[in-house]
Amino acid sequence: MYPASLQELIEQFRRLPGVGEKTAERYALMIAEQPSEDAQRFADALIQVKQKLHHCPVCGNLTDEDTCSICRTESRDKGQIFVVQSAKDVSAMERTGEYNGVYHVLNGLISSSKGILPEDLNLEDLIQRARGAREVIIATSTTMDGETTAMYLDRLLKKECPEVLVTRIAHGLPSGGMLDYADEITLSHALQDRRKM
Amino acid sequence: MYPASLQELIEQFRRLPGVGEKTAERYALMIAEQPSEDAQRFADALIQVKQKLHHCPVCGNLTDEDTCSICRTESRDKGQIFVVQSAKDVSAMERTGEYNGVYHVLNGLISSSKGILPEDLNLEDLIQRARGAREVIIATSTTMDGETTAMYLDRLLKKECPEVLVTRIAHGLPSGGMLDYADEITLSHALQDRRKM
Repeated sequence: MYPASLQELIEQFRRLPGVGEKTAERYALMIAEQPSEDAQRFADALIQVKQKLHHCPVCGNLTDEDTCSICRTESRDKGQIFVVQSAKDVSAMERTGEYNGVYHVLNGLISSSKGILPEDLNLEDLIQRARGAREVIIATSTTMDGETTAMYLDRLLKKECPEVLVTRIAHGLPSGGMLDYADEITLSHALQDRRKM
Repeated sequence: MYPASLQELIEQFRRLPGVGEKTAERYALMIAEQPSEDAQRFADALIQVKQKLHHCPVCGNLTDEDTCSICRTESRDKGQIFVVQSAKDVSAMERTGEYNGVYHVLNGLISSSKGILPEDLNLEDLIQRARGAREVIIATSTTMDGETTAMYLDRLLKKECPEVLVTRIAHGLPSGGMLDYADEITLSHALQDRRKM
């Protein structure tokens, strides 16, 4: 239906997560209508990301430098390690401005459905770091795979570094959440983890 | 929050229509995780579109060739001209498989809010083409600007080429549309344009 060059761009946009035919068309037609320099800048950004971006060898976060900006910051508390699934989670947590420890990015979760085993997550590095820390906060999502990974990490850390405190982020009603809209698992967690006021 | 190269890619994605911060992050992180060749192919597609794609000098549709694939097709009926706002509309109409005439793509609509005047739409070409045709079907959207443009084109064509039949695509209830959900303008159009069964 469309000229080959436009069709190819539509297909590239379709590969993005959650993008269907109509949306990909809309994106590609916007590119077709904007100045060449803008498309060039977009193309450069795509290539730069692949050339520069890599995982921080210390914590697994994404970085353009030798180590990531958090690991480079002297004032961050190396005694507290916040374990997350991906770099996106680091960014979400940093936005709260409430945490001054460091991170450990697993870049995946143990998953029977996706065939991801504990061996695939480079957990030796985490154990190594945990040995020098006071606390490891497990902050994987409260999904099936997230909970599986959290349980596995808890057991592993208690075995390999028994002196470190292992904690899990709280489960409960989200801010603004209404009781009658919450599912049973959320509600039973909210009851179990209740605190004295 | 993110490394510079990733932040730049997020900003490029944010410039796409309807893409907010979270979505742009998701797109950029997917690119960061996929092989370099895929990002390279995406970058090439962006550049190719700007190098190859242009408006058909006959009808204004998008093409990689001298003229567009519809204008090049001998069997299309040059006596019928379907006037639309953009190349996207040509694609939508072609998907019906019901139309064998040619198109005229305005690449815009007369709009007081956007300051687009009739002079900006290259209507001389349309008049020229209409002189050799039997029918001009005005198929701009049923929005304010679409209707303004349709009325303007109707008057212009009746003045400049009085022998051509000027028609407007039907307004009415969409397929699967329910009467009680339709707005008043749609309903009053559906009543006015009713046909004998």
